[in-house]
Amino acid sequence: MVDRKGQTLIYAIPQLAFNSSWTCLFSPKMLRRVLCTVLFVGALPSLAEASQGHISVVLLGATGDLARKYLWQGLFQLYLDQVSSGHSFTFHGAALKALEPGQMLMFDVLKKLSCPPDESPNRCAVLKDQFLKLSQYHQLKTAENYTMLNREIETLLRQEGLQEAGRIFYFSVPPFAYTEIARHINSSCRPPPGAWLRVVLEKPFGHDLQSAQQLAAELRSFFREEEMYRVDHYLGKQAVAHILPFRDQNRQFLDPIWNRHHVERVEVVLKETVDAKGRTSFYEQYGVIRDVLQNHLTEALMFLTMELPANVSRAEEVLQCKLQAFQSLWGLQKNSAVLGQYQAYASQVQEELQKAQDYISTTPTFAGVLVHSGSLRWEGVPFLLTSGKALDERVGYVRVLFKNRAYCTQSETLRDAGHSQCKAKQIIFYIGHGALNTPAVLVSRNLFRPIMPEGSWREEVGQSDLLIFGQPLSDYHVYVPVKERDAYSVLISNIYHGRKDFFITTENLLASWAFWTPLLTSISNQPLRLYPGGVENQHLLDFEMVSGEVAFTMAEPLELLNPTRLMPSDFRTIQSKFRQSPLVSAWSEDLISQLASDMEKAASRTVARSGQFHLALSGGSSPVVLFQRLARHHYAFPWKHTHIWLVDERCVPLTDTESNFFTLHSHLLQSVRVPYFNVHPMPVHLNQRLCVEEDRGTELYAKEIMALVANARFDLVLLGVGTDGHTASLFPHSEDGLEGAQTVVLTESPVKPHQRMSLSLPLINKARRVFVLVLGKGKHDITTLLSRVGHEPRKWPASGVSPSSGQLVWYVDYEALLG
Amino acid sequence: MVDRKGQTLIYAIPQLAFNSSWTCLFSPKMLRRVLCTVLFVGALPSLAEASQGHISVVLLGATGDLARKYLWQGLFQLYLDQVSSGHSFTFHGAALKALEPGQMLMFDVLKKLSCPPDESPNRCAVLKDQFLKLSQYHQLKTAENYTMLNREIETLLRQEGLQEAGRIFYFSVPPFAYTEIARHINSSCRPPPGAWLRVVLEKPFGHDLQSAQQLAAELRSFFREEEMYRVDHYLGKQAVAHILPFRDQNRQFLDPIWNRHHVERVEVVLKETVDAKGRTSFYEQYGVIRDVLQNHLTEALMFLTMELPANVSRAEEVLQCKLQAFQSLWGLQKNSAVLGQYQAYASQVQEELQKAQDYISTTPTFAGVLVHSGSLRWEGVPFLLTSGKALDERVGYVRVLFKNRAYCTQSETLRDAGHSQCKAKQIIFYIGHGALNTPAVLVSRNLFRPIMPEGSWREEVGQSDLLIFGQPLSDYHVYVPVKERDAYSVLISNIYHGRKDFFITTENLLASWAFWTPLLTSISNQPLRLYPGGVENQHLLDFEMVSGEVAFTMAEPLELLNPTRLMPSDFRTIQSKFRQSPLVSAWSEDLISQLASDMEKAASRTVARSGQFHLALSGGSSPVVLFQRLARHHYAFPWKHTHIWLVDERCVPLTDTESNFFTLHSHLLQSVRVPYFNVHPMPVHLNQRLCVEEDRGTELYAKEIMALVANARFDLVLLGVGTDGHTASLFPHSEDGLEGAQTVVLTESPVKPHQRMSLSLPLINKARRVFVLVLGKGKHDITTLLSRVGHEPRKWPASGVSPSSGQLVWYVDYEALLG
Repeated sequence: MVDRKGQTLIYAIPQLAFNSSWTCLFSPKMLRRVLCTVLFVGALPSLAEASQGHISVVLLGATGDLARKYLWQGLFQLYLDQVSSGHSFTFHGAALKALEPGQMLMFDVLKKLSCPPDESPNRCAVLKDQFLKLSQYHQLKTAENYTMLNREIETLLRQEGLQEAGRIFYFSVPPFAYTEIARHINSSCRPPPGAWLRVVLEKPFGHDLQSAQQLAAELRSFFREEEMYRVDHYLGKQAVAHILPFRDQNRQFLDPIWNRHHVERVEVVLKETVDAKGRTSFYEQYGVIRDVLQNHLTEALMFLTMELPANVSRAEEVLQCKLQAFQSLWGLQKNSAVLGQYQAYASQVQEELQKAQDYISTTPTFAGVLVHSGSLRWEGVPFLLTSGKALDERVGYVRVLFKNRAYCTQSETLRDAGHSQCKAKQIIFYIGHGALNTPAVLVSRNLFRPIMPEGSWREEVGQSDLLIFGQPLSDYHVYVPVKERDAYSVLISNIYHGRKDFFITTENLLASWAFWTPLLTSISNQPLRLYPGGVENQHLLDFEMVSGEVAFTMAEPLELLNPTRLMPSDFRTIQSKFRQSPLVSAWSEDLISQLASDMEKAASRTVARSGQFHLALSGGSSPVVLFQRLARHHYAFPWKHTHIWLVDERCVPLTDTESNFFTLHSHLLQSVRVPYFNVHPMPVHLNQRLCVEEDRGTELYAKEIMALVANARFDLVLLGVGTDGHTASLFPHSEDGLEGAQTVVLTESPVKPHQRMSLSLPLINKARRVFVLVLGKGKHDITTLLSRVGHEPRKWPASGVSPSSGQLVWYVDYEALLG
Repeated sequence: MVDRKGQTLIYAIPQLAFNSSWTCLFSPKMLRRVLCTVLFVGALPSLAEASQGHISVVLLGATGDLARKYLWQGLFQLYLDQVSSGHSFTFHGAALKALEPGQMLMFDVLKKLSCPPDESPNRCAVLKDQFLKLSQYHQLKTAENYTMLNREIETLLRQEGLQEAGRIFYFSVPPFAYTEIARHINSSCRPPPGAWLRVVLEKPFGHDLQSAQQLAAELRSFFREEEMYRVDHYLGKQAVAHILPFRDQNRQFLDPIWNRHHVERVEVVLKETVDAKGRTSFYEQYGVIRDVLQNHLTEALMFLTMELPANVSRAEEVLQCKLQAFQSLWGLQKNSAVLGQYQAYASQVQEELQKAQDYISTTPTFAGVLVHSGSLRWEGVPFLLTSGKALDERVGYVRVLFKNRAYCTQSETLRDAGHSQCKAKQIIFYIGHGALNTPAVLVSRNLFRPIMPEGSWREEVGQSDLLIFGQPLSDYHVYVPVKERDAYSVLISNIYHGRKDFFITTENLLASWAFWTPLLTSISNQPLRLYPGGVENQHLLDFEMVSGEVAFTMAEPLELLNPTRLMPSDFRTIQSKFRQSPLVSAWSEDLISQLASDMEKAASRTVARSGQFHLALSGGSSPVVLFQRLARHHYAFPWKHTHIWLVDERCVPLTDTESNFFTLHSHLLQSVRVPYFNVHPMPVHLNQRLCVEEDRGTELYAKEIMALVANARFDLVLLGVGTDGHTASLFPHSEDGLEGAQTVVLTESPVKPHQRMSLSLPLINKARRVFVLVLGKGKHDITTLLSRVGHEPRKWPASGVSPSSGQLVWYVDYEALLG
């Protein structure tokens, strides 16, 4: 059995493990005596009278790594904080281990619980003693164990005359155990009506979108959404938890500058010095993106980018804004990330997982990812998420760097340091460790003096000359927590208070997986850069942004880790022949890059020659990625001189999401600057009706083409191919548009919406260039077929594509070509 | 008589001023002897045989400040360089002074000419002696004087049997003397056919666009464009002169990064420590913008921003690219500049110009100007031009700062200094003085190692730890001239070689004045910030860019120089009543700002309420400035949810420059992101014909409005008013569109193009808000009239604007309101 960090859990149970200071057994009766004893100590109010009700906390995996390190301490802190709240508590450690060894192990942990420095030692000693007495070990293995636990809680409550407030079940167990435990809790351990149930779940919550959805669906069959508290312990880090309140409390300063016009870049970083040694069984399955970026860094990113709800402490409002922010993120592609692996990792994996000497791991231990948001607020601002193991320092931070908008007339040697407007302006949420070695919020002094909640953050004065992000610490307003708190203490307190905004909802989780999964898929065969680890890494892991992509700044060193020399992704784009015409083939992403570049080249040359470029684009799903690529990576495309025509259109209003033009507009036109006059949607919607022949839309479009395109000869027509061999909106077994003088035609599609408008085959074949894009496994059969058949447009319209004097190029990805 | 720098010229002439070393008088006969003597020295080839022809250089203003300081030295350098070129030379100093005092003064200067350090002292001594013998003083005052000069040159050439290569006339005289001298040269001193004439002109070339045009027209009546060499001595500064060659020779490195995607900002700076003392008579008329920005800094800016011609040494290609670059510049407005004046200036003016103690000068001695180019390459990149007197240091530079695109994973303390990609990347053309105290070209080492012409630039090695723009000098590749040359030597050499690309053509000059004049006009009453001068200025002159404007970063100090307390520009926007409706009035620029803000507010509120904003915009010239303002300063405008409608349209194709929609597109739509579907041009062009009634364009537009605008009630209609009282395209003495059910109508304008389409008055009056914008003196009469008349739409359609339940606001500028 393996815990969440990849280590073996011991689920065996000792029978009795009381040391001399414990004087009672943990039967309900005994517990009653404990509670009475507590009353005499005088620190607790009368439970029966003043109680807000009783809370039972059940910690599953009570003897595991996480519980030992953080959770018991967090529960003890909760008890210290809430002992006078009016609630009474019992704490139930549970594991698979039998009672005796389990008790022994658990109480070994409890004995070592430390008192927080701000607590009086006397009070703490008394309360620790009480806490131990209120804590009990249970073996939870079978359905009966759960029924028994439930009965014990009920008995206690009845005997003590306590009302039940609620139950917390903390799952500190590996995810494969979730479903079974959830089923038992749901069937046997639900509190009675009126009392709440809170189940606390620890990551990983799946491995990709599909597994996360599956796990979520299973959990949802046992618990209501509001009952589930998914922990991302980063949300308990004080600096991260303060991002939203900071944005809220400093709206007056941030409103004008929290946007693309003022923010130059954002860095969300978690660097570790440790490596994965001893944890490779876990790590090898997950890697740095799943371990850190998908959850911790993404959550911090969302707090930065989301629109601010009117009330930042209302979980539902926060969630909605966060989901919207996810929606605005641009999809990641393999060149959105740079990946590395520290040199010792492979041998650690070989050793710990008993792999052969030639076993090569493709798991990244370092990742730098460039994220872009398409929202009006953030468009164009680079968000850099970086994390890795075996780096030169341990540090975590969220850094917002503002654009320098000032010109300082005074020469720099004479400038008065702290206040110069020419110094970098930054806001940093310093999560911890690193040079500061404390959570902190830093705001450049030339930016503003932030409003910070006095009770919880204090200004740090008398600062050192430490350099933080290129500037002496004295250049910042520095705030540190009045009381530094461990993330788990914060989270357990929030579970107790029912503050769901500190936890990951199902929707949030799935949105995050939906964002990361395509990258995880596309990089699975990506080469990794090997790095020596620690300070030896030097510049090896520095990376750079170019046209919305990232790449390491240093040339590839020899020690490139490229596990399987013949990985498909290493194939260069293949140039060959298909149907007697040039064929370009590659994996789809590379193919799209190549096609976009070829289109830009064609456009630039044509504009240089004739002043304009007439481009006819097809509908369908394949071109969407192409449109995005053109919009995001081809700054030099001569859009101003390009005319955009449609190859085909569905007979729906242009604003309908089914409209080809709508897709084109969403993914390309709204991001580039094609003059309004140069955009030529097909007139499928005339006189408030769709594709009615007497409205003569086809004639209108044909005239427009004649009027603007010399000899009605497009400079470039982009086509696709359907699984049935259709191209444009020319379908098999119909003669519409295959020959004759009509250049624009109405056609019938076998699938909805049936009515279409399309350029005719003769018009297409007049073009100077025709590029045909074919993507995906689903197109393998038709691709194979087309490679064999001759000119049979009636059966397969795509076979009729054959420019009379222009150039035809096939862009077919490996999946379509090779199946 | 006042020279170009504002000092008195002495145009008197001494009769004889030879010291013992000069042995001959300067009659033509004597000169012949000189030439023969020179031949015997052996340094010159036989003039009669090997000569490429003779060149006569005439320096007008030969005893003035500029001649004394630079020009004679430059001519001597020319002689040193070209004595073996095959050309023979004579040098004619000329002034208004009589012969004797003139000779004396001039030879005092010549005696002091220094030998360049790289010249052998012996050769230089011999050549200096020859130079003095070849130099002669002339009084040039009357027409006869010019005829005489011409005759002397002719006689010499004849006697010596020399062919004439050409004549150079260097105008080192105040501009008011230009026309007269030009007339004399043209009528009496032109060389014979086959020989060239080059006239060299010194700034100022006018005071604003109009005066520059006038001066240019006068000069053009005497000289052909190719005969005129307008000096901007900055083009002779080695670092400035190398900008274009640098861009050309480093195309491989610069092509990918010399654009808005990589350049963060550009600074073009000339800081002086001296003040205007002793020169206020000149300075008070010009100020820093005319003295430095309009010419020197603008030329440097153009070298940076212009597209690179295929051949950078072809003057005509360079000129065309430069003119295009001027075309791309956004117009300057008063908030494009921050202005200052050093404190002592006023008293210097009072003293030197004998002004009263309460005389206040409005001449800026400091300016920081933000320039934007709308070209695809540079859009959004701020170009900051800064110059001033009495600043803390003397330095000139052109600095291109690149965006930082890297993330350095290694912590900064461990980073290897010079090569880190995270350090700033810059290219600096260091003009001179400052910390480096030499012209230089600096390129950050993490950028690239530039290609520099070996003969003229050498790499500076063994560098100091001097900080230059925030980085140690060792972070740069540093290149300095092999031979440091004075700008005037460079320019005189270029005049000799006929390299017109080093001079300002008429078109170039007028383009620059056309760019600067609107700013000069709009700031004439602008308050100036007083600054103490020197290091005491501290942060007083630091400034910041916000939304395409600039402002000082420090709050206004008390010593604000605001010469006339009741300057009109100080008036706040006035809120009052006009025709029973709210009136907003201000100077036009402030009025436009206010209107744009009000529109954004209305849009944001409406979108927040109903999800969309229907905005109907008028044609005409007044809204252009508004469109530009909206495009450039209103990032938060909810364009994505705004529908754009036309209030009226001319019956011309939409791509016609006369089309209202074309204007709207050029100045607003192409810069913002209104979805294609939300843009609603009027259908004036149907079936390849314009506004034919049976094409039912009005009906089509009315239906479109009905379909999309709830109750056909626009959220905001923007109107103008014509001098005849028309509004929209509803003209006096016609009933079309004034009442009735028809919402869109065809109308007839009294001016071309006659045919119009317009929203009707009833439709306009249904709107939620109607804003009427009236600008300019030309509208004063109609404004006055409208303020008095009642509801008489048949006479004055604008008087019929009266929303039934919406809000009407008049935006009338002071010129229209007060005349």
